[in-house]
Amino acid sequence: MHDSAQYCADMITAMTDGQVTVDLKAAGELVGAFEVFDAVAAGQADMYHGVDYYFLGQHPAFSFFSQIPFGMTFMEYSNWINHDGGDVLADELYSIFGLKAFSAGNTGPQSGGWFAKEMNGPEDFQGLRFRMPGQGGQVMGKLGASVQNLPGAEVYQALASGAIDGTEWIGPWADETAGFQEITKFYYTAGFHEPGPNLNLVLNLDVYESLTPAQQSIVQNASRASSIWTMSLFMARNAAALSRLQAGGVQVLEFADPIWDAFSAAADEVVAEALGDPIYAKCHESYFASMRSSAQWSSISEGAYLAQRNRLKA
Amino acid sequence: MHDSAQYCADMITAMTDGQVTVDLKAAGELVGAFEVFDAVAAGQADMYHGVDYYFLGQHPAFSFFSQIPFGMTFMEYSNWINHDGGDVLADELYSIFGLKAFSAGNTGPQSGGWFAKEMNGPEDFQGLRFRMPGQGGQVMGKLGASVQNLPGAEVYQALASGAIDGTEWIGPWADETAGFQEITKFYYTAGFHEPGPNLNLVLNLDVYESLTPAQQSIVQNASRASSIWTMSLFMARNAAALSRLQAGGVQVLEFADPIWDAFSAAADEVVAEALGDPIYAKCHESYFASMRSSAQWSSISEGAYLAQRNRLKA
Repeated sequence: MHDSAQYCADMITAMTDGQVTVDLKAAGELVGAFEVFDAVAAGQADMYHGVDYYFLGQHPAFSFFSQIPFGMTFMEYSNWINHDGGDVLADELYSIFGLKAFSAGNTGPQSGGWFAKEMNGPEDFQGLRFRMPGQGGQVMGKLGASVQNLPGAEVYQALASGAIDGTEWIGPWADETAGFQEITKFYYTAGFHEPGPNLNLVLNLDVYESLTPAQQSIVQNASRASSIWTMSLFMARNAAALSRLQAGGVQVLEFADPIWDAFSAAADEVVAEALGDPIYAKCHESYFASMRSSAQWSSISEGAYLAQRNRLKA
Repeated sequence: MHDSAQYCADMITAMTDGQVTVDLKAAGELVGAFEVFDAVAAGQADMYHGVDYYFLGQHPAFSFFSQIPFGMTFMEYSNWINHDGGDVLADELYSIFGLKAFSAGNTGPQSGGWFAKEMNGPEDFQGLRFRMPGQGGQVMGKLGASVQNLPGAEVYQALASGAIDGTEWIGPWADETAGFQEITKFYYTAGFHEPGPNLNLVLNLDVYESLTPAQQSIVQNASRASSIWTMSLFMARNAAALSRLQAGGVQVLEFADPIWDAFSAAADEVVAEALGDPIYAKCHESYFASMRSSAQWSSISEGAYLAQRNRLKA
């Protein structure tokens, strides 16, 4: 994800010919990873790049502009945010905090995770010690899992020692780097929790408004270019890493329908919890209407095509 | 597709603060639609925006940078061109003609087409008078269809009068505007011929090299931003138009497996025809290796997710 932030920074600097320079700081260099929202809102930093489901404490509707369980893919989100009302709702929400957000990257679908054993039914999640942050973790909790919120650096050791029974991470590229294949071979590639997490470039609104129109356009287009550049980077690297993992003996598995059914029912409860908030409710209506519309078209066009092409050519 | 060219033009002008202005001419204003390649190669114009399968006469390998039958989707192409070797091959091919190309838009999957009657097997294509340009049309010809190359403006009248038995066009948004639903209700949404046609912004190489590094970066990022902006525009508009078409009585149909099998066998023949050309052969190897790798990952991640989500939520 650092590559995606670096792309935005480099392109803003390059396109403005150095009129606007971006000094990219890693998490912890200026403020901690979870302090970036407050730091930029307060003007302590000019912008941050990240996934806004870390800031649901500030407002629950940030889930729509990052990821909610059983939500949109990258393409569906791009449709909503560029052409189907998402941008207007984002401006309404972020301006409350003195912020301006641009969609600027995506990891693509995150994997369901690594497990110490095969998961055969929803009952297997009862008492399972599993690492998954955010709303996805809340869903797992409703299935009876004991959800662990470990710092990233501690996950490998926890899985290796048996302190946890499983973990989700990102996808084959990052998961291989983390080394989980050294501990277990049971890998569920499709998950319900993050089918297309959106990364935002978020500016302090006063800083954004102080830019010239040309500079504002550069920030917007650097972000938009980064969204497809980053998404395709993850797709290329994940595809290559998956081949290596499989060659190394990793078993690629898919959850059975009854498990998906249980995920779905629990996700409905989690996603409905904040519907009392009017902005959340408005985003919820727009987001799901757009998702259903996109899904109807995609399933009978690209979905039907890919089913045939992969049957005949893959 | 004009919207996509306009986006590139507007963003280059805006981001350079008018240092580089783009004067967008519609097809026929400066030169004819099919003359843009030669005009830009010769320096008569600085750049064009379009789909390069119109220039297979100049080089057959342009099919890989526009669309080949049973080829890549938008996301798969973005992966190849940004991160999996496609950009290097594009530079090699376009530089032969003194050109520099950037991926700058996509219509998403084009529909299989409108037919006067249901198509029940490959034998129904024997003698069918059908409008489809390019390699897709060649594939149809191998199934025994009588392929008609009509100018766009004449297609509606030809279908209405019975001079042709069917036509493909683009997708629900453009097809609805063309009015084909007034003539027939048999609409096949998935097609083999253009699952993700890539639109390029193509510059005269000398002109590109005369730009400053900041201006070059602006051209590249305007194109990259346009690729996702355009693809999501088509997705949003197609989804909405499909709902209206269905409400108006259009039957959304899918070709049966034996028809797809026949399309597949014929497409293999068409795609193999130019393999004697070394650049074509090199592109062919890189393109299909990347496509298979992407497809393997996508089918078990996003594909598996969408199957479950659409079952449970759509």
